[in-house]
Amino acid sequence: MDLAVSVLQGNRLALARTLSLVENDTAKGREALAALFPHTGGAHLIGVTGAPGTGKSSLVNQLAQVYRTPAEGIPARKVAIIAVDPSSPFTGGAILGDRIRMRDLAGDPGVFIRSMATRGSLGGLATATSGLVQVFDAAGYEIILIETVGVGQAEVDIVRLAHTTLVVEAPGLGDDIQAIKAGILEIADLLVVNKADRPGVENTERALKGMLELAHPKRHDRLPDDTPLWIPPVLRTVATEGAGVREVAEAIARHRQHLTQSGEWQERDRTRLEAELESMIKDNLVQRWRASIPPQAYQATLQELIERRISLHQAADKLTNNRGEA
Amino acid sequence: MDLAVSVLQGNRLALARTLSLVENDTAKGREALAALFPHTGGAHLIGVTGAPGTGKSSLVNQLAQVYRTPAEGIPARKVAIIAVDPSSPFTGGAILGDRIRMRDLAGDPGVFIRSMATRGSLGGLATATSGLVQVFDAAGYEIILIETVGVGQAEVDIVRLAHTTLVVEAPGLGDDIQAIKAGILEIADLLVVNKADRPGVENTERALKGMLELAHPKRHDRLPDDTPLWIPPVLRTVATEGAGVREVAEAIARHRQHLTQSGEWQERDRTRLEAELESMIKDNLVQRWRASIPPQAYQATLQELIERRISLHQAADKLTNNRGEA
Repeated sequence: MDLAVSVLQGNRLALARTLSLVENDTAKGREALAALFPHTGGAHLIGVTGAPGTGKSSLVNQLAQVYRTPAEGIPARKVAIIAVDPSSPFTGGAILGDRIRMRDLAGDPGVFIRSMATRGSLGGLATATSGLVQVFDAAGYEIILIETVGVGQAEVDIVRLAHTTLVVEAPGLGDDIQAIKAGILEIADLLVVNKADRPGVENTERALKGMLELAHPKRHDRLPDDTPLWIPPVLRTVATEGAGVREVAEAIARHRQHLTQSGEWQERDRTRLEAELESMIKDNLVQRWRASIPPQAYQATLQELIERRISLHQAADKLTNNRGEA
Repeated sequence: MDLAVSVLQGNRLALARTLSLVENDTAKGREALAALFPHTGGAHLIGVTGAPGTGKSSLVNQLAQVYRTPAEGIPARKVAIIAVDPSSPFTGGAILGDRIRMRDLAGDPGVFIRSMATRGSLGGLATATSGLVQVFDAAGYEIILIETVGVGQAEVDIVRLAHTTLVVEAPGLGDDIQAIKAGILEIADLLVVNKADRPGVENTERALKGMLELAHPKRHDRLPDDTPLWIPPVLRTVATEGAGVREVAEAIARHRQHLTQSGEWQERDRTRLEAELESMIKDNLVQRWRASIPPQAYQATLQELIERRISLHQAADKLTNNRGEA
């Protein structure tokens, strides 16, 4: 409990320790989370996603610097960055990312950067990310940037944690079948065309706006008619030079205002917590099942399956019915 | 059961119907799978993954055409293509893909193409893909190409279904932090640099070979010392013109030979079935739990969570302990 108190008091070492305990899902980590959870709910969670090569990391770094710089009427905010790399199943690609970031933001006590690479299940990764977010939130980090590398369902699940989702594009990144963009666009609250000094930026922008018009109406089907609509803006940046980044921060602030005024902030909070709860329940069920099944019974059924004597569904039914508790 | 018999006899309509029943996880689909499963195990499952813009779909189409063309001593093979698009959580991007493919391969009774977009959970997607693979395998499709759009963990999980995994790259696709490639490289059995007529192909190839050397030793840690090693080859293609595609098919054939000679074919089969079994058990457990929990108890706990009166772990523990069966 001491640890949680230290985190709430702003102790950076205690914060780092708690993050590790939570990421590794230890008993102490769970204890700390239970103590910290009542203090959450204040942070603005911002998801940043997009294909590799779009310059997401540079944009996130620059955004952090904007939030650290006081502007008219806006004090500097405490910023946490969580970089999630679900594409690196084996090696610690994320560590490299950390080292590169350090150069820009190291030494600023108002910034905390944490990287996570995948290990084990995806559910585990989303759960771990959610845990880190809660710790930062309770510790008074007002802006939490959740950056994911890649463009798959894993990333979509992770950015769903966020109040505001930025999708980053860049000109000339392959014009494959655009399905990938069409899908990810529907979770975008803001679209950023980074590397906007490259040729083809107008094409990218036009394509995005066209797809937005297609994707847009669906998002609001479930909302009452008089709900204020949010039309995702398309913004240009050259993150390596900081160009356009303040405008992105301003658009994020407008989105926050939209969320609170429309009641969507609470709605998203609820949806997020419910999704996190379900994923945790799933983990509980699997752990409990694993503890209850005799290893010999498991191996015998697996062998029958491998010899094609029973089908997958039959094997699964057999193993879930023959539990110790039956 | 009639349906399964028709599938085994090569009836294309029955095959299409069974694929839909399996994809939608219906009772009839499960019944068909149970009847078909003893007839599986003959197909060579080939996973194809890589970032958007690399031209995976063109490569897969061209590979299918190579397999359909008899060569010296090699008869034409029956080919199934399963295109999985986990990046499109809402709209049916996959349908567009189908239409584009149709032009090349339509009308050939030895080719069957099936697209799947995400709906619901990822576990669901991998399970559905596995089901389709089993149906095609039992129906006598000797080559099953599983293509995934994107580069995240979802794709890694799906290509893990395969005996042979191709990772497709292309020159000039952004040189971000290379973590994404380092991660995916470790699952690659073959590397293909597509669009090899573009500038920068030498750089891409050199970078891949460099990373391969780093990634390579780890793959074989768990194997005995005398196991024949497979060094993933790096091949160039221009898929839109068919250049280099036959060489890819030949490398795939060599990899198959390596797998059978080293015993890794059986090992991968076993690993795959075990992973599929675990994911199915997980689905069973969640379904059973959902049926057992009184909706009011669920809503009351969710409300406590939203009001931050209990933590996520506490809420999850409460809901998994207070089940109907307790």
